[in-house]
Amino acid sequence: MTEIEAKRLLDAFKADEVSADELLAQLRGRNFAELGYATVDLVREERQGFAEVILGAGKTPDQIVGIAQTLTEKKQPVLVTRATPNAATVFQKAFPNAEYHEMSRCLTLASQPATKRSGTIAIASGGTSDMPVAEEAAVTAEFMGNKVDRIYDVGVACLSRVLHRLDELRSANVIIVIAGMEGALPSVVAGLVDKPIIAVPTSIGYGTNFGGIAALLGMLNSCGSGVTVVNIDNGFGAAFAANQINRLAHPEA
Amino acid sequence: MTEIEAKRLLDAFKADEVSADELLAQLRGRNFAELGYATVDLVREERQGFAEVILGAGKTPDQIVGIAQTLTEKKQPVLVTRATPNAATVFQKAFPNAEYHEMSRCLTLASQPATKRSGTIAIASGGTSDMPVAEEAAVTAEFMGNKVDRIYDVGVACLSRVLHRLDELRSANVIIVIAGMEGALPSVVAGLVDKPIIAVPTSIGYGTNFGGIAALLGMLNSCGSGVTVVNIDNGFGAAFAANQINRLAHPEA
Amino acid sequence: MTEIEAKRLLDAFKADEVSADELLAQLRGRNFAELGYATVDLVREERQGFAEVILGAGKTPDQIVGIAQTLTEKKQPVLVTRATPNAATVFQKAFPNAEYHEMSRCLTLASQPATKRSGTIAIASGGTSDMPVAEEAAVTAEFMGNKVDRIYDVGVACLSRVLHRLDELRSANVIIVIAGMEGALPSVVAGLVDKPIIAVPTSIGYGTNFGGIAALLGMLNSCGSGVTVVNIDNGFGAAFAANQINRLAHPEA
Amino acid sequence: MTEIEAKRLLDAFKADEVSADELLAQLRGRNFAELGYATVDLVREERQGFAEVILGAGKTPDQIVGIAQTLTEKKQPVLVTRATPNAATVFQKAFPNAEYHEMSRCLTLASQPATKRSGTIAIASGGTSDMPVAEEAAVTAEFMGNKVDRIYDVGVACLSRVLHRLDELRSANVIIVIAGMEGALPSVVAGLVDKPIIAVPTSIGYGTNFGGIAALLGMLNSCGSGVTVVNIDNGFGAAFAANQINRLAHPEA
Amino acid sequence: MTEIEAKRLLDAFKADEVSADELLAQLRGRNFAELGYATVDLVREERQGFAEVILGAGKTPDQIVGIAQTLTEKKQPVLVTRATPNAATVFQKAFPNAEYHEMSRCLTLASQPATKRSGTIAIASGGTSDMPVAEEAAVTAEFMGNKVDRIYDVGVACLSRVLHRLDELRSANVIIVIAGMEGALPSVVAGLVDKPIIAVPTSIGYGTNFGGIAALLGMLNSCGSGVTVVNIDNGFGAAFAANQINRLAHPEA
Amino acid sequence: MTEIEAKRLLDAFKADEVSADELLAQLRGRNFAELGYATVDLVREERQGFAEVILGAGKTPDQIVGIAQTLTEKKQPVLVTRATPNAATVFQKAFPNAEYHEMSRCLTLASQPATKRSGTIAIASGGTSDMPVAEEAAVTAEFMGNKVDRIYDVGVACLSRVLHRLDELRSANVIIVIAGMEGALPSVVAGLVDKPIIAVPTSIGYGTNFGGIAALLGMLNSCGSGVTVVNIDNGFGAAFAANQINRLAHPEA
Amino acid sequence: MTEIEAKRLLDAFKADEVSADELLAQLRGRNFAELGYATVDLVREERQGFAEVILGAGKTPDQIVGIAQTLTEKKQPVLVTRATPNAATVFQKAFPNAEYHEMSRCLTLASQPATKRSGTIAIASGGTSDMPVAEEAAVTAEFMGNKVDRIYDVGVACLSRVLHRLDELRSANVIIVIAGMEGALPSVVAGLVDKPIIAVPTSIGYGTNFGGIAALLGMLNSCGSGVTVVNIDNGFGAAFAANQINRLAHPEA
Amino acid sequence: MTEIEAKRLLDAFKADEVSADELLAQLRGRNFAELGYATVDLVREERQGFAEVILGAGKTPDQIVGIAQTLTEKKQPVLVTRATPNAATVFQKAFPNAEYHEMSRCLTLASQPATKRSGTIAIASGGTSDMPVAEEAAVTAEFMGNKVDRIYDVGVACLSRVLHRLDELRSANVIIVIAGMEGALPSVVAGLVDKPIIAVPTSIGYGTNFGGIAALLGMLNSCGSGVTVVNIDNGFGAAFAANQINRLAHPEA
Repeated sequence: MTEIEAKRLLDAFKADEVSADELLAQLRGRNFAELGYATVDLVREERQGFAEVILGAGKTPDQIVGIAQTLTEKKQPVLVTRATPNAATVFQKAFPNAEYHEMSRCLTLASQPATKRSGTIAIASGGTSDMPVAEEAAVTAEFMGNKVDRIYDVGVACLSRVLHRLDELRSANVIIVIAGMEGALPSVVAGLVDKPIIAVPTSIGYGTNFGGIAALLGMLNSCGSGVTVVNIDNGFGAAFAANQINRLAHPEA
Repeated sequence: MTEIEAKRLLDAFKADEVSADELLAQLRGRNFAELGYATVDLVREERQGFAEVILGAGKTPDQIVGIAQTLTEKKQPVLVTRATPNAATVFQKAFPNAEYHEMSRCLTLASQPATKRSGTIAIASGGTSDMPVAEEAAVTAEFMGNKVDRIYDVGVACLSRVLHRLDELRSANVIIVIAGMEGALPSVVAGLVDKPIIAVPTSIGYGTNFGGIAALLGMLNSCGSGVTVVNIDNGFGAAFAANQINRLAHPEA
Repeated sequence: MTEIEAKRLLDAFKADEVSADELLAQLRGRNFAELGYATVDLVREERQGFAEVILGAGKTPDQIVGIAQTLTEKKQPVLVTRATPNAATVFQKAFPNAEYHEMSRCLTLASQPATKRSGTIAIASGGTSDMPVAEEAAVTAEFMGNKVDRIYDVGVACLSRVLHRLDELRSANVIIVIAGMEGALPSVVAGLVDKPIIAVPTSIGYGTNFGGIAALLGMLNSCGSGVTVVNIDNGFGAAFAANQINRLAHPEA
Repeated sequence: MTEIEAKRLLDAFKADEVSADELLAQLRGRNFAELGYATVDLVREERQGFAEVILGAGKTPDQIVGIAQTLTEKKQPVLVTRATPNAATVFQKAFPNAEYHEMSRCLTLASQPATKRSGTIAIASGGTSDMPVAEEAAVTAEFMGNKVDRIYDVGVACLSRVLHRLDELRSANVIIVIAGMEGALPSVVAGLVDKPIIAVPTSIGYGTNFGGIAALLGMLNSCGSGVTVVNIDNGFGAAFAANQINRLAHPEA
Repeated sequence: MTEIEAKRLLDAFKADEVSADELLAQLRGRNFAELGYATVDLVREERQGFAEVILGAGKTPDQIVGIAQTLTEKKQPVLVTRATPNAATVFQKAFPNAEYHEMSRCLTLASQPATKRSGTIAIASGGTSDMPVAEEAAVTAEFMGNKVDRIYDVGVACLSRVLHRLDELRSANVIIVIAGMEGALPSVVAGLVDKPIIAVPTSIGYGTNFGGIAALLGMLNSCGSGVTVVNIDNGFGAAFAANQINRLAHPEA
Repeated sequence: MTEIEAKRLLDAFKADEVSADELLAQLRGRNFAELGYATVDLVREERQGFAEVILGAGKTPDQIVGIAQTLTEKKQPVLVTRATPNAATVFQKAFPNAEYHEMSRCLTLASQPATKRSGTIAIASGGTSDMPVAEEAAVTAEFMGNKVDRIYDVGVACLSRVLHRLDELRSANVIIVIAGMEGALPSVVAGLVDKPIIAVPTSIGYGTNFGGIAALLGMLNSCGSGVTVVNIDNGFGAAFAANQINRLAHPEA
Repeated sequence: MTEIEAKRLLDAFKADEVSADELLAQLRGRNFAELGYATVDLVREERQGFAEVILGAGKTPDQIVGIAQTLTEKKQPVLVTRATPNAATVFQKAFPNAEYHEMSRCLTLASQPATKRSGTIAIASGGTSDMPVAEEAAVTAEFMGNKVDRIYDVGVACLSRVLHRLDELRSANVIIVIAGMEGALPSVVAGLVDKPIIAVPTSIGYGTNFGGIAALLGMLNSCGSGVTVVNIDNGFGAAFAANQINRLAHPEA
Repeated sequence: MTEIEAKRLLDAFKADEVSADELLAQLRGRNFAELGYATVDLVREERQGFAEVILGAGKTPDQIVGIAQTLTEKKQPVLVTRATPNAATVFQKAFPNAEYHEMSRCLTLASQPATKRSGTIAIASGGTSDMPVAEEAAVTAEFMGNKVDRIYDVGVACLSRVLHRLDELRSANVIIVIAGMEGALPSVVAGLVDKPIIAVPTSIGYGTNFGGIAALLGMLNSCGSGVTVVNIDNGFGAAFAANQINRLAHPEA
């Protein structure tokens, strides 16, 4: 709450239009539902631009459904990431309108389609095996109202593949670049475009790949300027950040 | 070069307005100066939005001056990061108009001041010791034409410090959050704003801090959505990415 | 054995009230049962304040039952941690009065309920997925005679959740703070209270979380003073230490 | 601020005894001094039980003096840790009454001696080389009003050394155990006492000691229950936590 | 082959008592059987004091049997370590006299019992869970002709357990000390005896135990002099080295 | 495309023998098939000397078949590495002529046998357990037209085994040395031959082997000159590099 | 020594043309000089193709000179790598004809220039800061009789730099690719040429570069086939291996 | 103290030949001198076979002298390891008869030369740079009364060097093998002898050597049976263990 809003609220309190309890709750931003196993944030969209997203991993199907119910009651859109097929089955039983995106393991549920904003988020991946992560990013970005351009399997072992799609990359507002193994693709893309690049290392590889660390280090040490990085396999996080950026350029949606 | 530009160029070649050598050079984007110890990229601004920046570390003062001369001859602005005081002295002898920013170890040199764009980049830091990195980000962002809002020493050990400046954080287009030790500040800020956040871990701390790894891991695993991360102590990289984002929102400059 | 007790014993020996064997055994603190696969400490409560606790992991169900029998014969309370459901079944067959706490995987068995001491141990957790660890701490602390206040899913992504329960945190004698991912919650809590804080990193997260290392490092490097840390997922250890502290403040039980 | 205090304050506001600005500042806990390079927390003692402590490492002598001046103006005691001899010289010039503790690299400055509380904090160390860390803990604990019992160089290579001083260890309220190399001392002590133990790994050793990691891991994996751990070489942090515990048992000071 | 033996052989060659092929084979120590998938060393006992031992892990049951057949044909004793139950079944079908030691996963097969030498190898372990490794050491040492004294579950959390069996430890020729978690037992034992100690870290523990690394580092950094270390869980290697030492003291067998 | 080829192409364009689209495609090396999930490089043999090889790991059987179909339509040989038995079954159903090499998990498919070149690639391995990796190298090298000499289970624990086959090692053009555990074999071989050596660490071992890291570090730090290294278990990569070298010496095939 | 040579030698021994001592020495390859602090290999050129090279690091200047004297007495060429300026001064005093290559820290000394072989070794580097390593490789390769083509500062941040020199890369027999930071250059080059590539990671970078580990991992995980890797900063090792390969193709020198 | 000795002592106590204080001190093994900064163990020779050895690192020269004085007053021999030249100067001033061994950084001081026992300890090293560690082992072993056979610079890059001295290695009772880089020498030696081998990794190397970790891992994963390992650069520890072993075989000294 800004200073100005706070003072307006104090005037209302002095004029007895607002109770002391309500005043304190609002000043302290308290607005959540306590479920015992979860404390659901009900004003996240207001603060951060999008409703609370449910990380499916580590939660029971019942806990996921319970949190989703709290959100739907407040007319908030529901996105569950890393939902197992089993969790998806339970979820779809509770919410028949929910959609399960198998490749990305995401569940989506919204009373109305998101308004599309005009700018595009490009998602480039190094190889075929990066698809689950790339799709997590794509589904997330689309669910938040962005156009997505998929540019898959264009790793640096054959440069002409990525150069061939340079026009698409250059016309996007933000580029999510996803790669495993040595993670060199963001460096190459960064040298060719003037847009923010969000790099996602994937756990694709073996031996000294160390579950994605090789790719992560490659991206953090990129000689290409302007590359920022998220956690290994974190397609959701990349899309969330890309959405924040795309909203800046195209605030309409 | 886009497909359309390429075809226009081919027409010119067929019409003998452009030589075969020139055609090939342009198609292949060849435009650099070869100094033996360095191959200076002369069209980086065109491709990436800003001229080649010189990483001072690992280069001799003479090499830095040599590269800078190549750039200034092409009327390009010069930014040197991680310049030692000794390199700065040599540099300022060669370029009396150059400015040395001691805290950030940056050298800047431009024939004319950068046009300012209207959006702001906020730079928040966790502690006093993070200042060299924060200033590297600030000097870089300002040199690229952005307004910068410095919000220093507002780490989470005393939450009211960062809450006190929430209005400033919320009114910026991009927020660079810099922290050492456990690197928790970006998580807290991310929960409070709806703008892209670029986190910079610093090597401040001791023992299990491992030269910034603790902060880096904290940021990569942030429970706050939308946090992207750059290399430890990489204030420049954060500012470069923030500039790409701010240009999207305010393309005027 | 203190110097004074030892001399009293020597007097008894000289007066032939105590045999040489018994004297040596007492001087050397020898009081344990040798089962071949285990050497059960029978005077741990006297030395450390609580009877030997059985770490179920790595032991066969029969070994667990065997050790428990040795303890129950001496009228000592039995706590088994990390007991698999299979071990629990075998155990409850041998000890029908034993209780299995599924979420925490603990088995408890006592001839009489522990006397409650008056101070409270608060247990705060960052997210829903931290519950198994939080419950291991809660069951342990309660079994040792402490009141426990559960404050779950109050991670820093939404600060108002933890601020909302600040009064509870401040009124506890000790606070166990449990968090995965970046492990920032202990730093935030430490800045708000004047009580000892025991932080427990959990293995919740993925990629660079490295099975809880990110959270562990965050806690060890906490900028909040007074945070001490136990091993990843070690809810039992945190509760044991909290019990030692709470006993200092409220030695009645 | 608790709920009850907040409501009392709101009554005062309604009665015009408190201005809107002051009300907001108090509700939001805003009370710090902004020095540009530092934002000094002025109500830390109230919140956490002791005034802000200055970590000397990474700050210039002038910054240290500046922060100390802010604190002394508010009649708060000043403790600077990790102060280099050079910083100490500058500091003592500014504050002639300040004391520099060479072995521990601490600076202390207080208008009046701290009230002593009755319980004791024992500090045991494994070897002679651990003394700088042990003394950082000792100076901190004493400055905060605790009695300290130093038990140095009693590592496990010669068990009788620590057993000899068991009575002292058992009569303390809290025991800080400091050790480098394999860090086994806390495990041995934990098996012999019924008090909380705070273990401090030191960076003493070579090769696979890895700057204290061997000792840290030994302590985190201690088979002795009730051991909590702080960062490598963090004598201050251990003493701060020990002070919180000792205050619980002996709240008089 | 020593210089003297070589010259004796050359004399025989000159005297045509030995062929050129045989001379070269002997000079170069060539004596092995080539099975395609394995090249079995047939003179290892002569060179190293014991026949080639088969590491079962990573080999198919048929390969294990094939190598064992090559050895038995040469009247050599057969020891297979890390044999799965399945491999054991196949092996015992091929060699009905073979014995499978379940706890240690060893297979043994010898035409005649090993001659016992008089010195003892003591095997001390920290906890019940270390038994599989301890038994691998015990079975190996016994199969090589040594007397073994098992001293299990005497970890440092209760010192009197190990002190109680000090006489046994002191009367052994070599002591193998096996421990997981923080691996402190070898340090304590080393301070009490004047015999060589071989420490074996086990992968018992969780979290920062890192599969035995914590114990390994504890042992490598032991403040107790004279501790040497083998790989994590390498009971066989410890016993082999102990056998080499015991043979020095008691060369009769 | 070289400068000379490019100019020849431009002449053809000027003479209207080549269209603008084709000219651009050729200049930019665009020749790949876009399958959505894969972008298949169709000119890899021309650029790199061998057609695109399919890494089976991380791809569905259908994706593998789809890529293979694209290659076979262009008469390119197909090599799939790391193919699971299940993927092999699907593949052989689609391509009845394909061969599955079980030990190496490779699938091969070619319309005609590769021309053999005269030089030999020797493949030496340390132990029986290294065979899957050794065979991946052998199958790859043979499929690319090289003669292979297998020298298996000749690790340094019994030096005479490798010395016995020194003549074979010395007569090869390139030597691939494969070893797990401490990875010492390449150092020993390097000291005995004057040929390039490619070392492959395998993940054979346990404990501090860390899945092949011990062997990898041993090879990277080899005191034997001329040893180059590939990723852990990367038999394919070693064979590919050996093929490039052998082609240099014997370019006939 | 091959089987055939050995038998020839035995015939000579039987014919009394060779003594038993000499026979044994030759059979066992004994030919070295024992200096106490060093055992100099005098037949390395015969075995490995080039005389023993002296690693200057860790040796005193006197030891370096002593070993060099042993080599020069045998008319062998002398190459010292990692020679400090101080060692160089001492060395050049002892051998006035020796040349010190400052950038690469190499000393070279030969009675006659090496015969040049016709094939070329290309050395490509990512940045200006890689020059010391690149020059170590270049000086070594030239000293061993190879032509070297230096292609420096052509990192992937500006692709056209390396594409511009593709003809040179393609016409070399072997390509050494040297890069720090993310180490992506070998992957890009590997996709463009059909020659063996030896990648050298350098310790250039900061933060998560970890002294070259990021580049090393990038190279070991390269998606470009045929890349083999040497230790960080090991320019010498890369050149030695490249020399072995170039000799295969052009055995004249 | 054994059971039998204890009872004899109790008899003496009952007969008033021994006081209660003395009885307790002896039963508890209390015999040390408390210097404040050090607690010197005065019965270590009795317990462990050799007097307390002073690790010079981390102690001030005055502390070293103080501990040495305590020992010499008790007629115990003094060995200081890792003594800096400065510490040596101070030490030799206090003890003019002390000898400083520069290469090994050891100080030795004894009232009479140690009795020599007959067995030999062989010390083999891989390279010239390993000498400081090798000499630390040699000086320690000799000071404890053993004959030492130095076999230096016989690394595996030239096998015939170590094979040449095989007779010496085989005739020793224990072999200490010291190596940096890949640490392969112990594996090769282990395959050739039937004696216990103690391997010492050294921090010699660069890049991925990681200060000796590569060598350490090589030794822990040695395929040669019977290799035990001590900490990196721990020449002293290896010699101490070798002394324990040699004393078993030759107990005369």
